[in-house]
Amino acid sequence: MKILVTNDDGIFANGIKEISIKLSEIAEVIVVAPDRERSAIGHAITIHTPLRVEKTENIIPNIEAWAINGTPSDCVKIAVESIMKKKPDLIVSGINNGPNLGTDVIYSGTVSAAIEGAMHSIPSVAISACFFNGKINYESVAKISCKIIKNLIKKDLPKNIILNINVPSLPLEQIKGIKITELGIRKYNNNYVKRTDPKGKNYYWLSGELIEIENKDTSDIVAIEEGFISITPLHFDLTAYNYLDELKNWKLKM
Amino acid sequence: MKILVTNDDGIFANGIKEISIKLSEIAEVIVVAPDRERSAIGHAITIHTPLRVEKTENIIPNIEAWAINGTPSDCVKIAVESIMKKKPDLIVSGINNGPNLGTDVIYSGTVSAAIEGAMHSIPSVAISACFFNGKINYESVAKISCKIIKNLIKKDLPKNIILNINVPSLPLEQIKGIKITELGIRKYNNNYVKRTDPKGKNYYWLSGELIEIENKDTSDIVAIEEGFISITPLHFDLTAYNYLDELKNWKLKM
Repeated sequence: MKILVTNDDGIFANGIKEISIKLSEIAEVIVVAPDRERSAIGHAITIHTPLRVEKTENIIPNIEAWAINGTPSDCVKIAVESIMKKKPDLIVSGINNGPNLGTDVIYSGTVSAAIEGAMHSIPSVAISACFFNGKINYESVAKISCKIIKNLIKKDLPKNIILNINVPSLPLEQIKGIKITELGIRKYNNNYVKRTDPKGKNYYWLSGELIEIENKDTSDIVAIEEGFISITPLHFDLTAYNYLDELKNWKLKM
Repeated sequence: MKILVTNDDGIFANGIKEISIKLSEIAEVIVVAPDRERSAIGHAITIHTPLRVEKTENIIPNIEAWAINGTPSDCVKIAVESIMKKKPDLIVSGINNGPNLGTDVIYSGTVSAAIEGAMHSIPSVAISACFFNGKINYESVAKISCKIIKNLIKKDLPKNIILNINVPSLPLEQIKGIKITELGIRKYNNNYVKRTDPKGKNYYWLSGELIEIENKDTSDIVAIEEGFISITPLHFDLTAYNYLDELKNWKLKM
């Protein structure tokens, strides 16, 4: 079994190192990841500049690893289509430094890399670690995630579905189990902070503050709040099927 | 009525100029767009660098226009939350230089800007012009699009649905009408082209070639091929609801 590992925090991040080491106990692992942090990059791909593809040594001990000056989706594309001789059996994206929950997944490079995998008909999993006190124990999250993946690969993993896994960063004995969930809603009070540079010109920082919203008990957000591991199946067909009839009834004319 | 116009081809593109001029005949228009081309940027947002917000003069005659050194989604966020005093009644993203059809919408900055609008509970429309002979008549596409938008705003436009409009770049009399469609599938033979720089180091260009796939008659891709304007309702909930039960049946353990 061959697993391709990528992320959006970059190849030097602790999350990708720990999950790669752990996965290498159960499969052959190849890492193809961005050469620097590319979080909130969504499903961007690089078409206006060329990509550099560098084999790296010693970043992740004893594991073949490549650094790409592109996005997480670029990494999956170039790994599958150029670097690897055969398609991987599974793609794992993560462990992300922070949660990827609810409507936020649309901005996530971690989740987008897994979606790119599914678009190549490869079973794909995104793993994110939620910190609550500002810290993540990646070794522990990697251990739990690897156990889940070991169970997943015994199943007939669907090729066009992405599993979005969020792990609460709690001591193992405090995690209550696994919940299969739907995406909840995350809204921000996105105040932009205005500053002035030394030349007197203004610039703006995005400074989102999470707004408390009542989410459904079946949501990923509530599952994490309650101390469960959340697994949400995602797809990449954005068609709003339940709106087709309404729209047809409008009988729009040119 | 106030319409916010953005795009991913940048504020200097012809598409955004023509649609803004046309829309200004039926509403008050404000343009907030990237200061350069940002296509294939997906739903990326800028969190690691600050944004510059420049009011521009004379790029689009007689229309208030702002250039942002960010992504299309940044433009919608900062327009709605900082530049505009009141939420716009409608967001129009486009006219994109080229189609945004099928699975490709996931990479599209144009569509992502409209999705960002819907995430802010603002009715949002993405408009893309398909070229078949390498050319687009933006004036003609703007005229048709504006007519459609005039009809749309008479309806009760939903706040959480995006309308993805693709217009075939044909003479008006050759367009067969409007079809309400589902997203089809676009697959590429994404061969990366390897080159060597003057210093002897390799670099790679993404060089996708469209693979012919049999798409459903109800798809946006077939509608455009047949000479129709395609309108697809999109949503931003990626949950694969029809897979939740299967996944629950697996009874995954930690």
